[in-house]
Amino acid sequence: MIKATVYVTIKQSVLDPQGNAVQSALHSMGFNEVEKVRIGKYLEVTLNTADRAEAESRVRAMCEKLLANTVIEDYRFELEGA
Amino acid sequence: MIKATVYVTIKQSVLDPQGNAVQSALHSMGFNEVEKVRIGKYLEVTLNTADRAEAESRVRAMCEKLLANTVIEDYRFELEGA
Repeated sequence: MIKATVYVTIKQSVLDPQGNAVQSALHSMGFNEVEKVRIGKYLEVTLNTADRAEAESRVRAMCEKLLANTVIEDYRFELEGA
Repeated sequence: MIKATVYVTIKQSVLDPQGNAVQSALHSMGFNEVEKVRIGKYLEVTLNTADRAEAESRVRAMCEKLLANTVIEDYRFELEGA
């Protein structure tokens, strides 16, 4: 079993309306020190395999094909387990 | 400036329909080694402060009040910067 932790974030040059909405909400609650909020996705994918190199290429393929929209999003991932 | 990286995840005992949908999609694309998918949120919050201890208590308050629904979600965060 290998657990992949995938982080999908919006590219710096792309507007993040969800982040802006959360920032406004925080301001309206009195958290005026908040300068910027960017929101992304966090995924834990458990793979039934023991081959780390294969897992890496498979997770990369999943990100490219489904988990991230690479036009506007970046992704990175970490693997743990045997 | 302190940057807080916040991870909001669904508690283990709570169903994750979004994760299940992604898992089904991955299976239908041929990624049959995927055993489980859990999806959470990843937030980068930039704070205009230099006081790390204060930043920690403020970010905890933001999580409790807005960023996480603590009935069904867990959160954790890391601070970086002076």
